[in-house]
Amino acid sequence: MEKVCVLGAGGTKYGKLEDSISDIAIQASAEAIESAGIQPKEINAGYISNVFGVADKQVHLGPVIMSNLGIPEKPSLTIESACGSGSVSFREAFANVAAGFYDAILVTGVEKITHTGTEWTTTYFSYCSDFFYEGQAGASFPGLFASMALAYLTEFKATEEDFAEVAVKNHDNGLLNPKAHLRKKITIEDVMKSPVVASPLKLYDCCPFSDGASSVVLCSEKFAKEHSKDYIHVIGSGRGGSPAALQGREHMTTIPSTKIAAEAAYKMAGITPKDIDFAEVHDCFTVAEIIDSEDLGFFEKGKGVQGVREGQTKRNGEIPLNPSGGLKSKGHPIGATGVGQVVEVFEQLTGKAGERTVKDARIGLTHNFGATGASCAVHIFQSV
Amino acid sequence: MEKVCVLGAGGTKYGKLEDSISDIAIQASAEAIESAGIQPKEINAGYISNVFGVADKQVHLGPVIMSNLGIPEKPSLTIESACGSGSVSFREAFANVAAGFYDAILVTGVEKITHTGTEWTTTYFSYCSDFFYEGQAGASFPGLFASMALAYLTEFKATEEDFAEVAVKNHDNGLLNPKAHLRKKITIEDVMKSPVVASPLKLYDCCPFSDGASSVVLCSEKFAKEHSKDYIHVIGSGRGGSPAALQGREHMTTIPSTKIAAEAAYKMAGITPKDIDFAEVHDCFTVAEIIDSEDLGFFEKGKGVQGVREGQTKRNGEIPLNPSGGLKSKGHPIGATGVGQVVEVFEQLTGKAGERTVKDARIGLTHNFGATGASCAVHIFQSV
Repeated sequence: MEKVCVLGAGGTKYGKLEDSISDIAIQASAEAIESAGIQPKEINAGYISNVFGVADKQVHLGPVIMSNLGIPEKPSLTIESACGSGSVSFREAFANVAAGFYDAILVTGVEKITHTGTEWTTTYFSYCSDFFYEGQAGASFPGLFASMALAYLTEFKATEEDFAEVAVKNHDNGLLNPKAHLRKKITIEDVMKSPVVASPLKLYDCCPFSDGASSVVLCSEKFAKEHSKDYIHVIGSGRGGSPAALQGREHMTTIPSTKIAAEAAYKMAGITPKDIDFAEVHDCFTVAEIIDSEDLGFFEKGKGVQGVREGQTKRNGEIPLNPSGGLKSKGHPIGATGVGQVVEVFEQLTGKAGERTVKDARIGLTHNFGATGASCAVHIFQSV
Repeated sequence: MEKVCVLGAGGTKYGKLEDSISDIAIQASAEAIESAGIQPKEINAGYISNVFGVADKQVHLGPVIMSNLGIPEKPSLTIESACGSGSVSFREAFANVAAGFYDAILVTGVEKITHTGTEWTTTYFSYCSDFFYEGQAGASFPGLFASMALAYLTEFKATEEDFAEVAVKNHDNGLLNPKAHLRKKITIEDVMKSPVVASPLKLYDCCPFSDGASSVVLCSEKFAKEHSKDYIHVIGSGRGGSPAALQGREHMTTIPSTKIAAEAAYKMAGITPKDIDFAEVHDCFTVAEIIDSEDLGFFEKGKGVQGVREGQTKRNGEIPLNPSGGLKSKGHPIGATGVGQVVEVFEQLTGKAGERTVKDARIGLTHNFGATGASCAVHIFQSV
């Protein structure tokens, strides 16, 4: 297997964007290619991740992006795994470079959805659940994660204030991220007083609906060495699945796909959770970050809240989570999110993260899932 | 690289189906797994191809399918490349088995769209064009292919009756396919008298909108040998792209992505077009089959019509095209189409094609593209 590297990264701001889905995808792609210090023609293929192209009247995004980059002859495809699309697309590109099918691949995630309005966005997103059992019964994602949150509060010694602490931390991180959607300092009180969305989750426990595009260039080590010093290694990659509907799960306070994907990624990398210096994890709701932190092996089951209380997951803590601001503050343009996590790790490990730099970090992890974790991908990166 | 095999194949009838998108995908998947003579738990991953899950309120199809097969822990993803989704999904699965990441992969293509009605289906499909330049200007696919047809008629010595001949041939083949959508014998006169859709293309020059699901099991040769005698080898795989909008093409009578993908596939297989015994090609409109037959190297440019007139592309001709009935008669459930082509090749090369068997066939080719050929994949298969 070829050693795989991330050579460049770029992206738009996350938030409510005016440009079309194609335009923001092209902007992100061009930025990643420029960051990689290469010409578009050196790219062999485009792996696009997107869920609701229909909402902006453009599916089959790959050829539009490749054509606008001046490389229409290069193959492309779009990959969808709900909110985990970005990392799954990254995984496929990784597999193709590792296998030697391609030397350099553009991975671009994009979503343009906010113009449809909150009701339509919620409706579209519900199509990512097991719609027969969940979406059509009115169980959209805030409700589903509220069920998990309630189970967590019941099963472990946790409080709603613990959840709020995650939001406060991620907003603090997002303040330092110029591309974050919600750049606003908040307090525990702000979270506790925000409107209830689905009890026990309140508005500030939820990530926003965002537009945005993120992009990275993935390549073989040989290609990387020929083009730049600013690259990082992909040392682990894992995927897993969970029962599509929550009703099929044995437990509500763990996500099986995270454990399966993480185990595979740690095994490939030959490391343990203790070796991870920081992680970008899927905090679509505050409770999710706590569950993730346990399923990824950073804390024992039920002890994730302890880590939050003690500040261990802050940027200067023992295991910083979401230094980018996470989905909660940086935003969640669903097709882009998993790619955006890789952008953050690239910037952290190549000294480009500015004020939000995690000190002395050498190994970073990304964790991104679809729906309530029905699909998941975990990747591990190491600085050169 | 591991040698890759197709071990089993199955699928629903193509047409107007009543069951949900999930249900037809599960039916096809279960049939392919049974055909492979394996248990679902022996599958390592699910590669789903689908374009408009939104239309039936279910995207993130993978986990729903895997959960219903009793293997929720296995990873899955959905791949979209417009009407070429099925073959692109197959290509990704091929790459993963060839690279040794997985031993056995389920590839299932599905579309459920006819319930939205002709106007909405046409609108949805137009999102697969370069919408900024084409779809929003009213150039939906019949219009775009009519432009190509007009260019072909102008540039070469061809007539509308030549196009009609393709429809007649494919309907003759579809009559022998119990799963085909349009099982109806037609004559040249029927085609010529059918209503004009976009001049010079008439209704019977166009494939139908279809629902349907097709599925195959892809695996390593070692896995295949342990499980069955009825498998075939994948000996070539190629992908390519073209400018997304027709206006970006140098010529209107050739599809660059087909040539690029075919060249790569022939090279991998170490063969030439002369070695192909039959092919399933992308005949979304009659003119497309003629253009495909030239771009794939079966005929010189402009000579494809000659082949049609002489009956060379009939089931008993020198290079039979679309023995299944093709998109024209078998139907075109867009996410399923490319996988359905592989199902046909599997059945032809393992003696399961019944009355529509191509005599003495050992090597078959599939050719499937998205939109007006902005993306394309070609695969070549050989009997054991």
